[in-house]
Amino acid sequence: MSTYKHTIQYYETDKMGITHHSNYIRFMEEARIHFLKEAGWPYDKLEEEGVISPVVGVTCDYKKTTTFPDELEITVAVLEVSPVKFKLSYTMTVDEKIVCTATSTHCLLSKEGRPISIPKQYPGFYEMLTQAKVQ
Amino acid sequence: MSTYKHTIQYYETDKMGITHHSNYIRFMEEARIHFLKEAGWPYDKLEEEGVISPVVGVTCDYKKTTTFPDELEITVAVLEVSPVKFKLSYTMTVDEKIVCTATSTHCLLSKEGRPISIPKQYPGFYEMLTQAKVQ
Amino acid sequence: MSTYKHTIQYYETDKMGITHHSNYIRFMEEARIHFLKEAGWPYDKLEEEGVISPVVGVTCDYKKTTTFPDELEITVAVLEVSPVKFKLSYTMTVDEKIVCTATSTHCLLSKEGRPISIPKQYPGFYEMLTQAKVQ
Amino acid sequence: MSTYKHTIQYYETDKMGITHHSNYIRFMEEARIHFLKEAGWPYDKLEEEGVISPVVGVTCDYKKTTTFPDELEITVAVLEVSPVKFKLSYTMTVDEKIVCTATSTHCLLSKEGRPISIPKQYPGFYEMLTQAKVQ
Repeated sequence: MSTYKHTIQYYETDKMGITHHSNYIRFMEEARIHFLKEAGWPYDKLEEEGVISPVVGVTCDYKKTTTFPDELEITVAVLEVSPVKFKLSYTMTVDEKIVCTATSTHCLLSKEGRPISIPKQYPGFYEMLTQAKVQ
Repeated sequence: MSTYKHTIQYYETDKMGITHHSNYIRFMEEARIHFLKEAGWPYDKLEEEGVISPVVGVTCDYKKTTTFPDELEITVAVLEVSPVKFKLSYTMTVDEKIVCTATSTHCLLSKEGRPISIPKQYPGFYEMLTQAKVQ
Repeated sequence: MSTYKHTIQYYETDKMGITHHSNYIRFMEEARIHFLKEAGWPYDKLEEEGVISPVVGVTCDYKKTTTFPDELEITVAVLEVSPVKFKLSYTMTVDEKIVCTATSTHCLLSKEGRPISIPKQYPGFYEMLTQAKVQ
Repeated sequence: MSTYKHTIQYYETDKMGITHHSNYIRFMEEARIHFLKEAGWPYDKLEEEGVISPVVGVTCDYKKTTTFPDELEITVAVLEVSPVKFKLSYTMTVDEKIVCTATSTHCLLSKEGRPISIPKQYPGFYEMLTQAKVQ
């Protein structure tokens, strides 16, 4: 999978002169959407089918500060897969130095808000996640 | 109508050390929602009735910078009313000094995206706007 | 310590109709700043003394969705304290139901970016954290 | 000058299902920074020289809604130039249809916050703006 790139914007910095830490959660979403698209499961298509994929949890470890106009590179990997949820990991670098590592956990819900068994309802999606999983 | 208060948050500042200018557009929305609620037309109730009120235009003049943890006071007034749109003005102060003046223009749309004649479909809302209008 | 309140803003929602998950990281910051102020250590005063307190890590578990105009109540507690870092926990409720639990870890840095021994340089701050620590 | 591209992110939408209007002010900043870089005056270099360029005013007219994952194209033009300020215009399109037109006005300040005479202190920058001005 290709690396996702995000150039830090001026409006993403704070008065400490660095990228505000909340924005990394947004960069994770950008990278995740890029990952799903490259994996053949664009998120807007999933939504059109009536599936939503809420974030169940995130963790984020800030290793080095970044600032405008740093170019962030983000790689996404599948950490865990179960029939009802999956966990992704994110490695963010600037100039090949790690600035942030993170994870996000997701489930799939029907539009009515009911949990979906991923292998039953989206076997292709489940297979993709399982194959992409870090060994 | 009562003044709306917003304390500038740390995450609303940028590396210039001041409140990022884009956030004032958000403060306008907060003050507008407060204004509508006080006027008896809470925005979430309008939405539940199937009406949406997109922003057609904004203007914003930045007079003085603000920063964390300034306390902004925002007053909202009705500038113009027509059957299909209305224009609000905003005066933002810190310690009684004007820091920003702004306007926003809105129309009402049905859920299908069709423009609504405000006096026909929401005569009470139209009357409120007309009476609140600055003379 | 008093509970911090945050009313979910319209601009904090996303097209799923719920509060975007990244915003909870910002609500944590708001609640943390409120907590520090109530504990006698307002963050802007710390910064004026030349101290910065970057976020080293966050975790966030989303239990229930929220949306505009829910009123969030956030309580902050001290989970861990060491000479070089401290960890806070956050419990967020709407109508007394838990919607999100979270943690954030912080260190103190001098303006030059050097880690500060909290008990040596800010004994009063260290004492406050230690006493506030959940037993 | 090349067109600036911004893909609408999921976190930039709101519960109306569209891009929140405040974000266009941020897209303008992205496009402006791109414009200045292409014109040979990258904004981070200006800041390193001790110049800041606060936004004095913005106007924004929303013509059509956009949403995730629309690809926005933004062109920037110089509308007005005077020794103490300059005004830029922005045309934003999706699939060659105009979705938003906007303007922003800026001055240059020294780090002490004093207005700078652009032609006196930055003759090259002034010349660039004057030549780029729409006739």
